[in-house]
Amino acid sequence: MKEKIRMGMIGGGKQAFIGAVHRIAANIDGLIELCCGALSSNPENAKASGKDLFLPDDRIYTSFEEMIISESKLPASERMHFVSIVTPNHLHFEPAMLALTHGFHVLIDKPITFSLEEAKALKAKAEETGLLICLTHTYSGYPMVKQAKQMISEGALGKIRKVCVEYPQGWLSLPAPMENKQAAWRADPAKSGISGCMADVGTHAAHLAEYISGLQITQICADLNIVVEDRLLDDDGNVLLRFNNGANGILMASQIAAGEENAIKIRVYGEKGGIEWHQMEPNTLTVRWLDQPTQVYRTGNSYLSDIAKFNTRTPSGHPEGYLEAFANIYKNFALTIEAKQEGIEPTPEILDFPNAMDGVRGMAFIENVVASSKSDQKWFDFKV
Amino acid sequence: MKEKIRMGMIGGGKQAFIGAVHRIAANIDGLIELCCGALSSNPENAKASGKDLFLPDDRIYTSFEEMIISESKLPASERMHFVSIVTPNHLHFEPAMLALTHGFHVLIDKPITFSLEEAKALKAKAEETGLLICLTHTYSGYPMVKQAKQMISEGALGKIRKVCVEYPQGWLSLPAPMENKQAAWRADPAKSGISGCMADVGTHAAHLAEYISGLQITQICADLNIVVEDRLLDDDGNVLLRFNNGANGILMASQIAAGEENAIKIRVYGEKGGIEWHQMEPNTLTVRWLDQPTQVYRTGNSYLSDIAKFNTRTPSGHPEGYLEAFANIYKNFALTIEAKQEGIEPTPEILDFPNAMDGVRGMAFIENVVASSKSDQKWFDFKV
Amino acid sequence: MKEKIRMGMIGGGKQAFIGAVHRIAANIDGLIELCCGALSSNPENAKASGKDLFLPDDRIYTSFEEMIISESKLPASERMHFVSIVTPNHLHFEPAMLALTHGFHVLIDKPITFSLEEAKALKAKAEETGLLICLTHTYSGYPMVKQAKQMISEGALGKIRKVCVEYPQGWLSLPAPMENKQAAWRADPAKSGISGCMADVGTHAAHLAEYISGLQITQICADLNIVVEDRLLDDDGNVLLRFNNGANGILMASQIAAGEENAIKIRVYGEKGGIEWHQMEPNTLTVRWLDQPTQVYRTGNSYLSDIAKFNTRTPSGHPEGYLEAFANIYKNFALTIEAKQEGIEPTPEILDFPNAMDGVRGMAFIENVVASSKSDQKWFDFKV
Amino acid sequence: MKEKIRMGMIGGGKQAFIGAVHRIAANIDGLIELCCGALSSNPENAKASGKDLFLPDDRIYTSFEEMIISESKLPASERMHFVSIVTPNHLHFEPAMLALTHGFHVLIDKPITFSLEEAKALKAKAEETGLLICLTHTYSGYPMVKQAKQMISEGALGKIRKVCVEYPQGWLSLPAPMENKQAAWRADPAKSGISGCMADVGTHAAHLAEYISGLQITQICADLNIVVEDRLLDDDGNVLLRFNNGANGILMASQIAAGEENAIKIRVYGEKGGIEWHQMEPNTLTVRWLDQPTQVYRTGNSYLSDIAKFNTRTPSGHPEGYLEAFANIYKNFALTIEAKQEGIEPTPEILDFPNAMDGVRGMAFIENVVASSKSDQKWFDFKV
Repeated sequence: MKEKIRMGMIGGGKQAFIGAVHRIAANIDGLIELCCGALSSNPENAKASGKDLFLPDDRIYTSFEEMIISESKLPASERMHFVSIVTPNHLHFEPAMLALTHGFHVLIDKPITFSLEEAKALKAKAEETGLLICLTHTYSGYPMVKQAKQMISEGALGKIRKVCVEYPQGWLSLPAPMENKQAAWRADPAKSGISGCMADVGTHAAHLAEYISGLQITQICADLNIVVEDRLLDDDGNVLLRFNNGANGILMASQIAAGEENAIKIRVYGEKGGIEWHQMEPNTLTVRWLDQPTQVYRTGNSYLSDIAKFNTRTPSGHPEGYLEAFANIYKNFALTIEAKQEGIEPTPEILDFPNAMDGVRGMAFIENVVASSKSDQKWFDFKV
Repeated sequence: MKEKIRMGMIGGGKQAFIGAVHRIAANIDGLIELCCGALSSNPENAKASGKDLFLPDDRIYTSFEEMIISESKLPASERMHFVSIVTPNHLHFEPAMLALTHGFHVLIDKPITFSLEEAKALKAKAEETGLLICLTHTYSGYPMVKQAKQMISEGALGKIRKVCVEYPQGWLSLPAPMENKQAAWRADPAKSGISGCMADVGTHAAHLAEYISGLQITQICADLNIVVEDRLLDDDGNVLLRFNNGANGILMASQIAAGEENAIKIRVYGEKGGIEWHQMEPNTLTVRWLDQPTQVYRTGNSYLSDIAKFNTRTPSGHPEGYLEAFANIYKNFALTIEAKQEGIEPTPEILDFPNAMDGVRGMAFIENVVASSKSDQKWFDFKV
Repeated sequence: MKEKIRMGMIGGGKQAFIGAVHRIAANIDGLIELCCGALSSNPENAKASGKDLFLPDDRIYTSFEEMIISESKLPASERMHFVSIVTPNHLHFEPAMLALTHGFHVLIDKPITFSLEEAKALKAKAEETGLLICLTHTYSGYPMVKQAKQMISEGALGKIRKVCVEYPQGWLSLPAPMENKQAAWRADPAKSGISGCMADVGTHAAHLAEYISGLQITQICADLNIVVEDRLLDDDGNVLLRFNNGANGILMASQIAAGEENAIKIRVYGEKGGIEWHQMEPNTLTVRWLDQPTQVYRTGNSYLSDIAKFNTRTPSGHPEGYLEAFANIYKNFALTIEAKQEGIEPTPEILDFPNAMDGVRGMAFIENVVASSKSDQKWFDFKV
Repeated sequence: MKEKIRMGMIGGGKQAFIGAVHRIAANIDGLIELCCGALSSNPENAKASGKDLFLPDDRIYTSFEEMIISESKLPASERMHFVSIVTPNHLHFEPAMLALTHGFHVLIDKPITFSLEEAKALKAKAEETGLLICLTHTYSGYPMVKQAKQMISEGALGKIRKVCVEYPQGWLSLPAPMENKQAAWRADPAKSGISGCMADVGTHAAHLAEYISGLQITQICADLNIVVEDRLLDDDGNVLLRFNNGANGILMASQIAAGEENAIKIRVYGEKGGIEWHQMEPNTLTVRWLDQPTQVYRTGNSYLSDIAKFNTRTPSGHPEGYLEAFANIYKNFALTIEAKQEGIEPTPEILDFPNAMDGVRGMAFIENVVASSKSDQKWFDFKV
């Protein structure tokens, strides 16, 4: 790498949770530089936030349009390489489309857009322009998740028969107070879209299930619930699954599972054994066998696959966490941008980040579970 | 107690797994005496098994009919007080009905009968005769399960919103070899009934969910699967649940979850917090709260409820297990028989064992999940 | 087995904790029958306790002398086979010696006696008479402990380099109230002997370390403490260890480790790997390797050693606990008595219970740690 | 903060493990900028490493002397604020002293120096110049460690009675191959100093024990071992401890605990309860009480102390790890430098990083355990 990859951020001003996470993820490996930002739709907040982040005054913008247009006029050696979009869901599509139109790669917080239609349009635009879209399905960035995917793809478990994925959180167990910005926009259909819990965390679970198993969901039977009174969007749900190889599954997602933190967990059972991974102890992958002692694979050990090692920074026993998983997505995206800059074909290793297709499937998941939940029909075809 | 309670066992001869477990459970507290048995339908096995168990020759019977008739003619001070029926499912009803008819209390391994109809008939007979029926839903015998039930009934978690229960096993991941008797009868519809996995372990999960939560299942949406080729009965299944207070839930049961041992686990979430209990670490009850540190309740501590303490034999840190949970059911049943013998009203504490009503609901569970699974209708009313 | 093995119990009347545990352990497998007892030195308590246990009036004795003499006069087909001594430490030697003198095998709760000298005298008497002494070092009765011992003896870990054993309890963190009988006699040098914590739980830890590793302690450096004011005996201690093969180790035992239940735990490290076992999750044995995933061995699985299987009653995932570990000692002892009765050489499998030699080493441990703790000399030879 | 704090790195070129960790830690929060480096004593490696890190050519130095002198001549607005020294132990003192002499703050990887004497000299120089020294005892940077320290200092556990700290690793179980640079210098007395294992990991354990408990070690009894043949320095050791309030303790450190990763763990017991923390699950703090359920405190929750929250970046359930703990030390050090730049008194919150005094105590620990281990005297006064 001859220079750092330059990032412009849209959203993520003061008080925004996920913007700070994205910046840490971009910082960790020292490969990416925050060069400009349109950090808030409020100009004062945008300016103050830019100053806090040590941005030069002339690259603190007050709208994404201004940023994209202005940056596109800078010399190639100065202008940003990609935008990172960390706004609420309803504000993903427009800046993403504008960035693609002006030749910038795009990284977006999940879900990719407000609707499936928008997602398809972005995917088409990316294909047309040859630009990259990266989606931050963080949990696929963990080394032990990659280890599981690798073992399953190599057939270690035999044919996959059952996938159980769950994502219980408890933080929306009570009606959210007005001042909680995170909770507020997620509960507002105009900003979040047609789903609450399933859009926010269910999509992570669905992505993880497909990523690890290498399978695709083909049929669902969904039961979405509004548990806390006066909510407009689901805050809980259970979904029966069928996959394209005949495997069955369950997906549970909840934001009213009182006392749970961020307990995304997956189990995949095959003919020969099963794997289990919990995000809250992410450096452990439990592998169970029919007639042998259970094995505990741990991040950082010599016996792991190359792909797990490539996404690890520390030796075994030095726990990596959520921010490092997030950083793996940024790092792989940045290395792929760099390869493209240099006209090199990106390796599968660095292309291993969620992309536009994952974004489309995620939006399809949201639309399908909402439709299935409203239907009296038991099994509902998963349409993309 | 003036004398030990006398038990006659039906089934449970050499090589039978569950018969040995029942005898240990009956032995542990020294309150129950095995006084006679019809331990096998094979007369030679019956005799050899009786000798192994130190039974006197004249109380080793070769059929349950012989045993029940003969015992009923002995003086009250000698004859058995109850029968323990540990035969395969299709051989529960007849001996149970005959025992009730001849004035003996009845303990039966779950599920109570071969069909819901039989279960209702037994329940009616027990009510008519005033005799007791006890069903060994073992998992409800654990002290920490009773603690959870107690806390929930006292409102510690607020209104219950969600119940997730699962019972993964892996022992039927491969086609069972002919010589495995346990696997063989369970896979045979003529002996097991209309369901395999759901009858064998799903009923435990359903019972545990209702026992701990104090709720009743009112609607289900079931997806039963035959995963291993050539099986005739379900070996896996996922069920969406709705409860009588509006709570939702999931029940997963599987015998093809490769590598899993006997991993029945339950989580119940209410407005204020949630509980979690795993059978494989049964002395721990995890209680999570909205805004306080998670608490870990442990068997044998002074802060537990009276009902948990009543069902515990050792101080904290001296783990009790499956056999002690089983023994709690036997002990409470024996103490209730004794109270009845002495004309005393049994206390709620000793009446705390699964009974005929639980048996009827268990059979209803089996019939409903099988029917729901075959149906295209999404939500299926749980009919008893 | 043609008849049950008959046990006479000394001590263990109402309110005694460990007596009840011994009876459950003896009951579990249905091989042993409590036939008589001298359950308390208080005649009324002795009688009431005997009645509670359904003993016939003529075999409820009011002193151990009466019991041993009377039983020795009964015909062989009726009289007890062994005594179980569950009194405080200072009341072990006399009944044990009298029993041996009258031809009865002896089972004693640990530590075997009040002093090393007494222990040696008992051992000599047992050798002289050919009678058996069994000592209830419960923790060596767990199947996973036996699995660990077996693996180590077969060289799975290579040469052993380090042994870390600890036994923290918290129940004596406060001055014990007068009415706690368990705490009272243990704190009284006239009843407990020269040590409190080390005699009560340290001996278990030392036995476990030697049992699992197959090594013997040869040198110690002990630091015993009286943490709670006004105690007369140690309630806490740390000991550096050296073993006969050059391995080093640590033994920590405490009864003032506030909040701990009964957390005996051991780790043994060899050249090739290490094992870890916790009593509070006794069905799990963790085995770590230099360059392979950690393995989790679990009770009841087909891949375990014969000796582990022989000491297990239930399939994997059906947790066995403290009472079953205790029962394994009783069962093996009973089977050995039976073999002797029938003139058969006991197999190593059934001889696998702690014996007089373990009792002598346990008393030596107590005397050596107390002496070492008082000494200014760093390393103290472990003298037996 | 008006500008990023500028760091110059000494050591940490290609292939160096700990240098990369330091850079990530410095990067995470976007507050620190790597502005120059003398990354290797090999000029070619120094230059290549500097290029890889996007350093401008004129600030890639080939010796620490060159770097310190050159930087000191740059205008204040450009020159580095501090040096980060990540060389082997024998190369800490000289650059640190030179940096202090030229007005630069100093951050050093632990142990602070090669000898206690050097450590005292650095501390004196820092006091004389008013410059800061920061030592990366990483484990004190974890939020749950700070929570534990806070609770103990507020008396939640009552008077502290016992501290058990251990740091088992297994990576030196075999003679290290020549090409392992990490292992090689640590095993060489000329580079590592008078101790191997105790200097490398034992010092972390000792620091953690004093940091969390708020106590100071006053007496020790050490048993250091060379387990792998032909080593020149200890690779394992056990130490009995006494603290200044009368509490006792144990410290175990090993690099031949085969199969262990990086398992530093601490337990502290007081009159009212005890805490337990494991580095490999760092977001969990277990708090046990005499008569209440055990509590599990978890990073990121609202009920935690301010100091824990100040050192956390993500919401509960989003695990932070080793790199974030490391980053907390860098962040607090940078904020303190900034406060000093601006003439503001640093708050206790930002001053919470290990300093010169910790460095001196760490070197004293090494010298004392080595001396104690060689001595026949049991208790050895901890001299600083």
